[in-house]
Amino acid sequence: MIASTQNKSLAGKLQAAINDKTKPIGSLGQLEALALQIGLIQESVTPRLTQPAILIFAGDHGVVAEGVSAYPQDVTWQMVENFLAGGAAINVFARLHQIGLHIIDAGVNHDFGPREGLLSMKAGNGTANFAQQAAMTAETCAQAIDNGRAALRATAGNIVGFGEMGIGNTTAAAALMHVLTGIPVEQCVGAGTGLLPDGIAHKAEVIRRAVALHGPQHDPAAVLATYGGFEIATMVGAMLEAAAQRRILLIDGFIVTSALLVAARMAPAILDYCVFAHCSDESGHARMLQALGVKPVLSLGLRLGEGTGAALVLPLVQSAVAFLNEMATFSSAQVSEKSSV
Amino acid sequence: MIASTQNKSLAGKLQAAINDKTKPIGSLGQLEALALQIGLIQESVTPRLTQPAILIFAGDHGVVAEGVSAYPQDVTWQMVENFLAGGAAINVFARLHQIGLHIIDAGVNHDFGPREGLLSMKAGNGTANFAQQAAMTAETCAQAIDNGRAALRATAGNIVGFGEMGIGNTTAAAALMHVLTGIPVEQCVGAGTGLLPDGIAHKAEVIRRAVALHGPQHDPAAVLATYGGFEIATMVGAMLEAAAQRRILLIDGFIVTSALLVAARMAPAILDYCVFAHCSDESGHARMLQALGVKPVLSLGLRLGEGTGAALVLPLVQSAVAFLNEMATFSSAQVSEKSSV
Repeated sequence: MIASTQNKSLAGKLQAAINDKTKPIGSLGQLEALALQIGLIQESVTPRLTQPAILIFAGDHGVVAEGVSAYPQDVTWQMVENFLAGGAAINVFARLHQIGLHIIDAGVNHDFGPREGLLSMKAGNGTANFAQQAAMTAETCAQAIDNGRAALRATAGNIVGFGEMGIGNTTAAAALMHVLTGIPVEQCVGAGTGLLPDGIAHKAEVIRRAVALHGPQHDPAAVLATYGGFEIATMVGAMLEAAAQRRILLIDGFIVTSALLVAARMAPAILDYCVFAHCSDESGHARMLQALGVKPVLSLGLRLGEGTGAALVLPLVQSAVAFLNEMATFSSAQVSEKSSV
Repeated sequence: MIASTQNKSLAGKLQAAINDKTKPIGSLGQLEALALQIGLIQESVTPRLTQPAILIFAGDHGVVAEGVSAYPQDVTWQMVENFLAGGAAINVFARLHQIGLHIIDAGVNHDFGPREGLLSMKAGNGTANFAQQAAMTAETCAQAIDNGRAALRATAGNIVGFGEMGIGNTTAAAALMHVLTGIPVEQCVGAGTGLLPDGIAHKAEVIRRAVALHGPQHDPAAVLATYGGFEIATMVGAMLEAAAQRRILLIDGFIVTSALLVAARMAPAILDYCVFAHCSDESGHARMLQALGVKPVLSLGLRLGEGTGAALVLPLVQSAVAFLNEMATFSSAQVSEKSSV
């Protein structure tokens, strides 16, 4: 059960605290909105962030058989190895910003064996090709969601970022976006890891054929099972659990937002708990954020995934909480207030 | 003497290093541009950031007598006291992001006496009212510029952010912008610390009258002396010295960018050394950045000054340098490269 964070009385107290800080009203812009949001999530005028973590969910996609990615499927497990070895972009950012990193094998088509730092929660060895059949059964999808809830429960801290790795997953995310929002396929697909225009057109065509095959669907769990990936479904479960526990969710790019889109159809109040880290350079992302009615914090032209945007936004979220807790007030600092000009 | 950082051979090496990292080409967006820029500034494929610092320059403005600010002039020295006591927004962000903070009295209309943490470099007790006469003489302006060079030399580290405090200084900055770029006054003025539309119109009228009084001017030093503030002129000197020493300059909001505009007219190559931290909510700033042909990193609706934007962008700059130094390459991590899709 996810409760809305709306609370007029507390919101009034938080806004008064923000306005009393030694700065012109509203002059910290989006940081003020973040401070307010986090205060509401934690039901406190002195919120704190503890043990920031990022969960990276990895999974493989049967739809790669349709030739929808610029990279071979092996890159999924190779990048998981890179995460475990500490050499990926997200490792660098997590070290720099002191973020705990948790790698979850949600369904990679590879046997890693027991590995230090890897949480094995395989819902399968990659999904089926959704151009030919549902990516997963309803039961497997429910299992993946449960896996995500368990992964979240195993993670400490009150602020959690979401990241992913899965060759082919921009195709799955674009299909989810199209079916759940009705936005035309051509506005949902993008270059992914580096497709050329012909490749993007082919990707759109694969999705159109799949939608014709599976027919109209509205139930978010059914749509997720039909087009989603194991990493996406597992992420949906982790997101639902995180919001149910009133944690702050840092939402990364296109694929993570597609998981959030599914979760928000299941439990709309989840949006109260989400900080949208950035607007990805993947072309459908801006449109997806717009469909959710949300505004991202950063816009740096990133299109890497892995949770990199979530890692990069953390220092700004920390800055928002810090100004609320630490700045002097006009009265405490004996600074004159605005005159009536 | 400020040298351009352009160097085709080194740029090629840096770009190759960036492209060889385990990520799709270009997928770290603006962070890749930052890594390249900083490599060129430091003439190294393994750049390092040392002892990040922010200099806050404070000064008072005679033009406040025209009723151009929502706050009384006393707020300048009161906020300097707030900086010294550690209670302002910039103190909070500097502590959080481990940035050394240096407060410079460039010409506040107040006698602080000798104070721990305050560098006294007064060019005067506030400027003259530029609606009636030049804000400062050519000699005083040159002195302020020299003061800034000295302040910069007294600062360690190879990355320095610029911040300011001075009631009335959006009026000075708007006047500098208008005279140096020819952009109409109404596109240069904004709400500052919180003017209402009538106040903004009045501010524009004050600038128009002053420009009619002083007549056309083109020499950047002369324009600076006529309309600038002591904190702006001192900042110009510090910026010129920082670039001459090949340090990285973090350029904050509207007022800091107006100082950079002056400095860039004196030495255009200074732009190679600048990271434009954010686009301020002060309405002229976007237009000023456009006139300089530069793209800011953040856009958070900030309009506080103090160097807050410079402090908030630092973790992103550190992230850019870190990925260049620490990420694995495709060959080292044995990750498959892009196929020809």
